[in-house]
Amino acid sequence: MRIDHVAIAVNNLDEAVKEYRNALGVKEVEFETVEAEGVRVAILHLNNSRIELMEPTKDTSPIKKFLDTRGEGLHHIALETESIEGEVDRMKGTGVRFLGDVRAGSRGTKITFIHPKSLHGVLTELCSHPKK
Amino acid sequence: MRIDHVAIAVNNLDEAVKEYRNALGVKEVEFETVEAEGVRVAILHLNNSRIELMEPTKDTSPIKKFLDTRGEGLHHIALETESIEGEVDRMKGTGVRFLGDVRAGSRGTKITFIHPKSLHGVLTELCSHPKK
Repeated sequence: MRIDHVAIAVNNLDEAVKEYRNALGVKEVEFETVEAEGVRVAILHLNNSRIELMEPTKDTSPIKKFLDTRGEGLHHIALETESIEGEVDRMKGTGVRFLGDVRAGSRGTKITFIHPKSLHGVLTELCSHPKK
Repeated sequence: MRIDHVAIAVNNLDEAVKEYRNALGVKEVEFETVEAEGVRVAILHLNNSRIELMEPTKDTSPIKKFLDTRGEGLHHIALETESIEGEVDRMKGTGVRFLGDVRAGSRGTKITFIHPKSLHGVLTELCSHPKK
């Protein structure tokens, strides 16, 4: 298991990307919109992992609710596993609760989320990437 | 630059370690106490990075204040750089604000913290490890 990315909720994506790029000296940034989650995402590539900045694209986005309640900041971490279905089964056996089933993420990934109550307040995404 | 660790504030370290170990299937865990920061830390090794669980060791610990205000959850991320002094100088040139000077962390590391206001609400540690 590895840290796939750390996700940060921001109010204005373009402004945040500019500041993060300047501060961290990151050169490679990709953008994508995930309609199902109501977010636009900027992916900043680091040497061993990624930082993802997210802004809500609609008022019903969970990220909008998070920003209204908590303000900008760390939103979730994502852990990559080779076999997401197997990991979910194993975790459920230890009493871990999930938010929804394993579903399609962007770019052929499979994702699901562990309930924050199962990991001491930390919303944790599990993901697996398509085999190359 | 790489993600050195993600740090999570918890009320009861031993309980949190047990639950994280069970949930994530992590085998290797190290403990350390950082008196200067008023925390006891459990380090969970993942393939490419680490998760650090932190509990306060005294009422004046910043982690105690965080827990009282926000509750358990994501506290900060740490980014590793080869030359921390050089990075701090470069970042200051782009307007990034810091919380204190570069100082000794545990195990020969050098650390400092970027002010959350400079990174959209994210407390970010910069660290460098001693050369092997």
